[in-house]
This record gives sequence, C-alpha cells and structure tokens, in this order.
Amino acid sequence: MTYCVGMRLDAGLVFMSDTRTNAGVDNVSVFQKMHSWEVPGERAITLMTAGNLATTQAVVSLLEERTKAPSERAPSLLEAPSMFQVARIVAAALRETIATHADEGQTADSAFNGTLILGGQIADSSPRLFLIYPEGNFIEAGDDTPFFQIGETKYGRPILVRAYDSAMSFEAAVKLLLLSFDSTIKANLSVGLPIDLQLYSEGQLTLGYSARIEVDDSYFRQISEDWGEALKRAVQSLPDISLS
Amino acid sequence: MTYCVGMRLDAGLVFMSDTRTNAGVDNVSVFQKMHSWEVPGERAITLMTAGNLATTQAVVSLLEERTKAPSERAPSLLEAPSMFQVARIVAAALRETIATHADEGQTADSAFNGTLILGGQIADSSPRLFLIYPEGNFIEAGDDTPFFQIGETKYGRPILVRAYDSAMSFEAAVKLLLLSFDSTIKANLSVGLPIDLQLYSEGQLTLGYSARIEVDDSYFRQISEDWGEALKRAVQSLPDISLS
Repeated sequence: MTYCVGMRLDAGLVFMSDTRTNAGVDNVSVFQKMHSWEVPGERAITLMTAGNLATTQAVVSLLEERTKAPSERAPSLLEAPSMFQVARIVAAALRETIATHADEGQTADSAFNGTLILGGQIADSSPRLFLIYPEGNFIEAGDDTPFFQIGETKYGRPILVRAYDSAMSFEAAVKLLLLSFDSTIKANLSVGLPIDLQLYSEGQLTLGYSARIEVDDSYFRQISEDWGEALKRAVQSLPDISLS
Repeated sequence: MTYCVGMRLDAGLVFMSDTRTNAGVDNVSVFQKMHSWEVPGERAITLMTAGNLATTQAVVSLLEERTKAPSERAPSLLEAPSMFQVARIVAAALRETIATHADEGQTADSAFNGTLILGGQIADSSPRLFLIYPEGNFIEAGDDTPFFQIGETKYGRPILVRAYDSAMSFEAAVKLLLLSFDSTIKANLSVGLPIDLQLYSEGQLTLGYSARIEVDDSYFRQISEDWGEALKRAVQSLPDISLS
C-alpha cells in the first residue's frame, strides 16, 4: 500500500508520501513515490504515486525521458504552458502505461493500476493541485476540497478534515500531516517510514524545502509519542455524557 | 455499510452501533443492529451485526425463536452454560444462514456475509467479548486487543487506539466512542445516526443503561461541534517542526 497527501494552503503546496511498497506482507521494500521537476524562476512540479509500482515507475520514467531526450521533447513537462497541460501529459502517460499491460502479456489478480497526485505552479498562474485517476482523467482541488489523499486514505483522514485550515503555516501543516501519517502507519503495516516531504511556496517558481523523515527522526518520534496524551486531553476537555 | 464497536473496560462492557443500512447510496433505511437478551441475576447478552441485512436479521430471528419455542430450546442462548457456548450457538446460526443462501437459489455480486460482535456475562464467569466471522469461527478480546470494530472500521480506529484506557469510566468510554462514530459518520455516508448504546456493568448480570442517540441529540451535536476545536488545540499543543 501507500499513503500520500497533497495539500493546498494559502502559503503554497505541501506534499508528503511514505516510501513502503509491498507484495504481500513478506515482501517489503523502500521506494521513493515522490518526484519533482523544476525550471527555477519558471515552474516547479511535484508528482506522487500510488498503486502498482511497475506502472508508476514506468510513468515517471516516461515523463523523465521526455524531459531529457531532445527528439521526443514535444509533450515535455518542462515545456507545457500550464499545470492543466502538465496534468494532461501525466494522465496520458498513466493511461498509456496501464493500457500497455492490460492489452497484452500476462494478466494478474490485481490490476496494474495507479493513482497520482500532481501539483505545482507555472509562470504567473496560481499553484494548482490535481488527482489523476488510472482511467487518465483528473480532478482539481478547490476551496471545498483543499487536499487529496491516495493509497490508504481512511485512517489519516479524520484529523485532516477536522484540523486543516488554509491559513496554517507550513510548519503547522507538516505537523498535521505527520500526525495523519502516524495514525496510518500505526494501523496499516503496508504504510511505513521513511516519509518524504516537499514544500512549495506560492510565487517562488522553484522547489521549496524538502526532507526525508527517517525511522529514527527525533521530531517524528516525539510527536508520535506525545500525540496519544494530547488526544486523551482533548477528549477529556469535552463534557462527559450523563448516563441516566 | 455499518459501524459497530464492542469494548471491554475494567467496569464492564460497552456496545455501540449505528442504524443505517443501504443498498447503494439511493436506498437507505434505518434498522436496529443491536440485540440484547437477559435473565436478570443470571445472564446478560448483547449482539451487534454487520453485513448483509437479510443474513443478520435471519440469524437474530433464529436466535430469538430458539429462546421462545419450547420444543426447540436445546441450543438456546438463555440456557447455554457459558459465553463461549453462546458464541458457538451464534456462530453456528450465522454459518448456517450464510450456507443456506450460498448453496441454493439466486446468487448475488456481493456475498450474503455477516460479521458479529457478541458480549456478555453468565453467572460467575467474567464478562467476555467475541468477534464472530462469517465462516462461523470467532476470536475473543483480551488485554492486548480490548475492543472489536465491525463494518466501516478505519476512520474511527485511530482515536480508539490512542485514547482507550481500560480504567476509563462508562461516561468517558461513551464519549470516546461517540467521537469515533462522529469521525466515521463524517467520512462515510453509509454510516449514520441514530446510534444505539448498551452498557453492561461487570457482575450485575442484568442489562445496564441503554439509549438511542437520535439525529437531534444535543450532547452528540455539542461534542461533534466542539471536537474540531479540541483537536486543533491538541495539534497546536505539540511542538512545531523546524523547516530548515
């Protein structure tokens, strides 16, 4: 499984992904699921992937190749004039990759599907955030739904729904996301550390702070340990029911 | 869908279930999923059901009939000498009901499965809590896993894992469960109010406090509204990450 969240803030975009992939519980690996591209001063783009690893790696390779091989540069991420066009290029690469494996060769019990979160900013447009489906269509985040989750979305969702605020700082948003990841990691063995983080500040047109939060990260350990007590205090702060 | 939780406390047992059933999103009804039996001074038993409604209603009817028709009273819930035997009777009724529909008649896309939570106390044994699978086998809650969830279990799980404490009062446990239900109801349309509640105090050998929490229940509304702020304060109480 996987857990990735892309979030829109007034200040910009936040991307967080885990790095665990698994085929069953006895075949576990670490793979990066977050990929970024930039042309400083002109565009910054981040992509996160969930689903069949062969599919999502092929999509990323396809997109990477297109940014590198001059003869095939027509649909390049680094030349598309808008994030909407970038989303179309990525979605087409995803659909194409899935279709290749669906139409020929061996079949598998699980489909070779993938789902993607794409965000970034190009030139003087606003930052935009998209959720791309395996069918090759996509939706965009707005004020009503300011974040997207892919993979194991359920355990970490309630805290995001309740505590998200578009005006929050990057620091507060990263803390909130780490708590959401902690809830998910505690409940689903197929989501695991390390966690990749990428920030994007609106208008910067260059990638922001990025980090890999490792298993022994002292900050993550601290909030993971303290969160149980903080949550108990929050529950206690509400009035008790009268049972009579 | 459905959401039910059965929880062991030092003080006894707590049962909570929603009442929404659905076939698609455009066919929604209210049905009770919690059923209780008692012989005051001798035994108190509560059963909660998730899964195919025809299956679970048939199981309950089968168990009810057995408690009422003298000629068929041999495997009665009200005569079994222990909660383990009660669990075996309930599990056999469940497996039998599913097998009946699996072997003959029309088939359906979704299996006619059901999953049950059973708890109670008989005579001088301890209170016991079981999770019964559609295959007719079951597991019992212990100190390591003191509560069971069935139905839409994911959204409401993190808060239970974090804030459960076996020493908590019934009042605190009901508040915690209502917050877990609130998270689930907010995220999944197929889980809905009203909510049924049944308490059992260890050693009482008679059913405890029970209530139906309706859509307009003022206490539920209050904690549902206040929980967002309480959660935000809890997040704020943790130290911010240093992004540099």
